[in-house]
Amino acid sequence: MGAVEYRPGLEGVIATETAISYLDVDHEEIVVRGYNLLDLARQRTYVDVVGLLVNGQLPTEAERAALEQQLLAVADVPAEIWQILRLLPREMDAMDRLRTAVSALGGWDQAANSADPEQDRQSGFRVIAQSATIVANLIRVAEGGEPLLPDRRRSYPENFLWMIVGRDPDPAEVRAFDQTLIAYAEHELPNSTFAARVIASTLADLYGALTGAVASLKGRLHGGANEAVMEMLLEAGDEDGLERLIREKLARKERIMGFGHRVYMRRMDPRAQLLKETLAALVAQKGDPEGEKLVRMCQRGEDVMRAEKGLFPNLDYYAAPVYWVLGIPIELYTPIFFAARTAGLVAHVVEQHAHNRLFRPRVLYTGPRGLKP
Amino acid sequence: MGAVEYRPGLEGVIATETAISYLDVDHEEIVVRGYNLLDLARQRTYVDVVGLLVNGQLPTEAERAALEQQLLAVADVPAEIWQILRLLPREMDAMDRLRTAVSALGGWDQAANSADPEQDRQSGFRVIAQSATIVANLIRVAEGGEPLLPDRRRSYPENFLWMIVGRDPDPAEVRAFDQTLIAYAEHELPNSTFAARVIASTLADLYGALTGAVASLKGRLHGGANEAVMEMLLEAGDEDGLERLIREKLARKERIMGFGHRVYMRRMDPRAQLLKETLAALVAQKGDPEGEKLVRMCQRGEDVMRAEKGLFPNLDYYAAPVYWVLGIPIELYTPIFFAARTAGLVAHVVEQHAHNRLFRPRVLYTGPRGLKP
Repeated sequence: MGAVEYRPGLEGVIATETAISYLDVDHEEIVVRGYNLLDLARQRTYVDVVGLLVNGQLPTEAERAALEQQLLAVADVPAEIWQILRLLPREMDAMDRLRTAVSALGGWDQAANSADPEQDRQSGFRVIAQSATIVANLIRVAEGGEPLLPDRRRSYPENFLWMIVGRDPDPAEVRAFDQTLIAYAEHELPNSTFAARVIASTLADLYGALTGAVASLKGRLHGGANEAVMEMLLEAGDEDGLERLIREKLARKERIMGFGHRVYMRRMDPRAQLLKETLAALVAQKGDPEGEKLVRMCQRGEDVMRAEKGLFPNLDYYAAPVYWVLGIPIELYTPIFFAARTAGLVAHVVEQHAHNRLFRPRVLYTGPRGLKP
Repeated sequence: MGAVEYRPGLEGVIATETAISYLDVDHEEIVVRGYNLLDLARQRTYVDVVGLLVNGQLPTEAERAALEQQLLAVADVPAEIWQILRLLPREMDAMDRLRTAVSALGGWDQAANSADPEQDRQSGFRVIAQSATIVANLIRVAEGGEPLLPDRRRSYPENFLWMIVGRDPDPAEVRAFDQTLIAYAEHELPNSTFAARVIASTLADLYGALTGAVASLKGRLHGGANEAVMEMLLEAGDEDGLERLIREKLARKERIMGFGHRVYMRRMDPRAQLLKETLAALVAQKGDPEGEKLVRMCQRGEDVMRAEKGLFPNLDYYAAPVYWVLGIPIELYTPIFFAARTAGLVAHVVEQHAHNRLFRPRVLYTGPRGLKP
């Protein structure tokens, strides 16, 4: 076997074959099982995308309705999960509480230990739906309250949003929320999906792979960015404040959250474009002055960063204000990202178990040799 | 950036620089911060190796004694961890219970969220010692019993073994157990260590990285092998039974657990050689006929596999009978592997956070294009 050039962070290295998704950098298109993710977001629902990712085909209308009922039917979680969450310290990061709950969930699904792709699909539908239920109730339960349990009379995204905000959302809000779920559903091989596939390649179970993905997504170089964007927007106050804040940060050579991406370099993350439109439509429909200010702020930040650094917004930059306008607590932004991404993660674990090869790379050793104890 | 040849499982691909350890395949030597792991196992203790791995230097006698006291001082775990473990189903895999407990532990160590290398070291000593306490009590607590809490009058390995078996071990047993901990402490970039570094590279916390490592180690292609070896030895009954069983499995083209390794191909895993000697010494000292039979069985299995397949035993093949002779329940073999490996895992997370580069590889897309929803 010949020598391999060392590429830090495995940048540009092909780590796996996949038929699930592909970032076409030349056309800046996100391909999901052959479809453009933006077409899916504009014409379909999150439940359609779950079916496409996990079963491999876009469902018919009747299949989508059946899958929506199936997901809602398995969305309840064992009472012990709420008890475990109540035992964790209130100051524990929401993602760390979620990580613990997803790990614990495996205890009630022993069949997942088979690491069989068909079983992964069935367990996958459970964990997709149960993750939403857990995420929606993370703060409520940590504060000693009772969880809002799934309401099966509602659609999947309406139920998810209702469990989070505790009030009846209007159809425009549900549609905006559903579009964020689609935007977050799948994105090739980001760190969290790679972590899940690495773990699954030992023939470890789906819950272990997903637990590793939560752990990864928590990191501030990954899923944590959407929360950091909203903190920045709130600190800035208005568009002039944001321009001042960004220029100050740039002068101090600080990283501006919500801009740039390892893979997208030359244009805007297509998902940012999608959620920019989602935000504008949501705000226009609500006639909300606070929301209108957020729209202006985001545009100003985008203009400044393009002029000063040639950088474009990523998904998190526009997901954050959408969630803010929907009234979602900031500490749930990254947990919601995970709940949406479970669809893609399950598909990757199914594929890994179906065509498995253990991940076991090597190192470039830079330490000493020949020491004697 | 030029094209990179796709290597399934990243076989032979260099994923990171490291000064922690290296498998020198040409000399079949495991180098740990410049030392031969076998020299360390024969001349030093596990606590020495913890100091070497985490602090970067082999401790003096006084430093080792101080570190041993430090580890024992932080070995207690919050009472809530035992409550959480009691809420999990009894039939849940011991590694899945451990995964949940390690994830939960992070809640009581908020400082670890800094992802700062020096903080990682301090949190690391806690999680090394607390993992041992949790592992030792996994079965006891699941069965409704009270945990055996750390006894600071004992040495680190004596306390660990005592918490597991619930009786006073003799010095030969403690030494044999300590040698298994050293053998398991660090091994370059196996799947679990790679998973931990991938997760840590998002600047996620130490507990998240270690939780991912537990998830990986559970897989039957990785840490689970030591338990499978012991099940095979018990099923075989004696040396003739083992030879028959192996030949039957080979005829059915089944995998024989405990043989072969992605990296070691031409000789015996040096750690297997070490623990083969450990097993022989332990059995000779105890004068145990059952143990003597295990020694003969393992030799027979080794001979048959070498003659038939040209394969050599790996670490798990000899760790299993050592743990059996020590009276350790089989379902704790893989959890003990993790508790020992925490030393290496903590060192890798420290190093990743100190010289970070986000892991984000690419894929070879094999699916369709251009579909319309």
